[in-house]
Amino acid sequence: MNTLIKDVQLEGKTTNILIQDNVFKTIGEVSNVKIDKTIDAKNKAIIPAFYNLHCHAGMNILRGYCEDLPLFDWLQNIWKREAELKAEDIYNGTRLAILEMIKSGTVFFADMYWHHKEIVRAVNDMGVRCDVGVCYMDRLSQMEKNENDDFIKNFSKENNPLITVSPAPHAIYTCSEELYRHCYELAKENSGFMQTHLAETISEVNDCEKNTRLTPVQYLNSLGVLDDKTIAAHCVHFTEKDAEIFAEKQSVAVHNPCSNMKLASGVFKIGLMKEKNVRMTLGTDGCSSNNNLSMIEEMKFASLLAKVSNQKPDILTAEQVFEMATINGAKAYNINAGKIMEGMLADCILVDLNNERMTPNYNTIYNIVYSADSSSIDTVICNGRVLMENHHVENEEEIIEIAKNYAKK
Amino acid sequence: MNTLIKDVQLEGKTTNILIQDNVFKTIGEVSNVKIDKTIDAKNKAIIPAFYNLHCHAGMNILRGYCEDLPLFDWLQNIWKREAELKAEDIYNGTRLAILEMIKSGTVFFADMYWHHKEIVRAVNDMGVRCDVGVCYMDRLSQMEKNENDDFIKNFSKENNPLITVSPAPHAIYTCSEELYRHCYELAKENSGFMQTHLAETISEVNDCEKNTRLTPVQYLNSLGVLDDKTIAAHCVHFTEKDAEIFAEKQSVAVHNPCSNMKLASGVFKIGLMKEKNVRMTLGTDGCSSNNNLSMIEEMKFASLLAKVSNQKPDILTAEQVFEMATINGAKAYNINAGKIMEGMLADCILVDLNNERMTPNYNTIYNIVYSADSSSIDTVICNGRVLMENHHVENEEEIIEIAKNYAKK
Repeated sequence: MNTLIKDVQLEGKTTNILIQDNVFKTIGEVSNVKIDKTIDAKNKAIIPAFYNLHCHAGMNILRGYCEDLPLFDWLQNIWKREAELKAEDIYNGTRLAILEMIKSGTVFFADMYWHHKEIVRAVNDMGVRCDVGVCYMDRLSQMEKNENDDFIKNFSKENNPLITVSPAPHAIYTCSEELYRHCYELAKENSGFMQTHLAETISEVNDCEKNTRLTPVQYLNSLGVLDDKTIAAHCVHFTEKDAEIFAEKQSVAVHNPCSNMKLASGVFKIGLMKEKNVRMTLGTDGCSSNNNLSMIEEMKFASLLAKVSNQKPDILTAEQVFEMATINGAKAYNINAGKIMEGMLADCILVDLNNERMTPNYNTIYNIVYSADSSSIDTVICNGRVLMENHHVENEEEIIEIAKNYAKK
Repeated sequence: MNTLIKDVQLEGKTTNILIQDNVFKTIGEVSNVKIDKTIDAKNKAIIPAFYNLHCHAGMNILRGYCEDLPLFDWLQNIWKREAELKAEDIYNGTRLAILEMIKSGTVFFADMYWHHKEIVRAVNDMGVRCDVGVCYMDRLSQMEKNENDDFIKNFSKENNPLITVSPAPHAIYTCSEELYRHCYELAKENSGFMQTHLAETISEVNDCEKNTRLTPVQYLNSLGVLDDKTIAAHCVHFTEKDAEIFAEKQSVAVHNPCSNMKLASGVFKIGLMKEKNVRMTLGTDGCSSNNNLSMIEEMKFASLLAKVSNQKPDILTAEQVFEMATINGAKAYNINAGKIMEGMLADCILVDLNNERMTPNYNTIYNIVYSADSSSIDTVICNGRVLMENHHVENEEEIIEIAKNYAKK
């Protein structure tokens, strides 16, 4: 399958790009090739697509269910509704989440939820990439844990190259030492990756220090479960030593600015993380604490929050936060994507340069980070397959209708 | 002219709304009326439109021109380009700004720039409301100041009821005592309103205290130029006494969270302002320090910044920030709008409930504040006139094309 992206703007110059199957084959002159599909990209710019490193996609079905309560009351409300979610609801919620992600240019998400078969089904249907994080907590029964284990061990048989399945011990306050060790071993025998929440709130840190005399990062390090395939969400309350450990282990920190702000968890220490060379990526978190899955919005929040909280308007530039949202995320999961370059996987966005938010266009990255919204995204391609063209995703009307009907109940 | 909005969702219930000329005439059963235009609003919700209380619209033509420099270097770059802007550029930049505002649901903006005739021309062409702030600084020549005075005094003759023209002394560090007094008198003889920047940065406060032993607010109060028609942008570094003065004078504080974050100016003290009952509104500031004019985004930034900086997730609720962006802004300029209510001016938005960001829709205001973007806005009506329908604004292609051509030069 040969797809030609014709007359597209790449870093300020007009060019043609040939996608052969799932790879950028040629950038520049394309000749002597039978073209199966041509995309007229006049007045469009091509940029890498987004990699959302932390999400609970199924929660989309509960978007805006309740808001603005003190944290504990809010959690009680959300947990109660979450407990009522059935397999089919998770499938529909995840499809809605993926639709929203495609609409705003995202082609990969690291998910952490339950009813994993339904999540895999939704990801298969929609054509994006996903690391399906299988959530573990002490309170699961042994049978549930065994089912999780089996799901992870048996997954490769399903053979969708865009999906990995990984253990996701929820957090240090919900998982024992043994459970973390179990998940880590399971990770090593399977995808390699392990997701967890880490150092999200100050009370998590305080409790951990009280119980173990270690910070959450030092505690996990003492268990031997940190390496370059550990994907840790939030990472708000890091000490200097924590950042040094993460850098040494090459573990991946996922910054979730909207969630951390909305839940008043605290401010990610961008200066410290940069200084220590911690691998930094970006994620939206679930819809209940954000309430959307737009990486465009997340980049702006990350950058502006860093500027104001450090009193330094150049501490996190547009280019830096764009890398966090693209190539850093892809690299974290060993996906050979995140740049528009010959030989790399064909994950990309075509940005509409006739969109008012992209006008004028002195610098496409500045506009994407500081000005754009989903209306600026025209076309989304994942692994060579066109998932959205002219703002339209296949079956979007049906996905919306089903979610609306769920809410009516 | 009778416009019928048919089958629309208003606060969760389906109804019909009759707009007669520029007013919501009937909400509910509409009968025995000749209808000139019918809007099918099935699957759409009606909400008030947004009032952007601080903006430099013409700067849109410089969107993303340079970014992420230390503040002084950045200002030098922007000022240099601003100085090159001609009357026609301001007209085109302002049209682009208004297009962007309509696309994201805004029908009024308080502007502060120069080439005022061009701004009035752009506002007339686009059909929105505007307070054209005529910028004064000491460094203007006497001739320029006289021209400003004449423009303000003569404006009423042009007779567009959607436009007011008001003096806008730039800031205490660019305007003398005499100039503030002059502007205030001019305001009282004309629209009544006066715009200014106030307490934006800590250096402004420190310099003022050094020179006058007063805070910026106390200084302006000592000049006798604060009242209920003073519109003050930023208001970041307020003391308790400053907030008390503003509350007593009923002066209007404009919160500009994106700009204050991007330029690292500081964090607006929402708790103090609420406690003292200061009149709070919302504004985007100019495109160079934001870089868009979306009040939807501004609401989310305001709310999330308040939550994280006060460690209190319920300090600024969705309803409260929505009021800041709607009725509070309208009231600040004595515009009888900001609610969907019989007898009020017909300024409103139809939100697309089939948009992915609005799905599911447990609560329209929660979704608009925390999830929506411009793709969620279907229709915009200002003073009874439809400015956008089905996401399309008249002449938008031409406005974009002209702005793109400017940037190419």
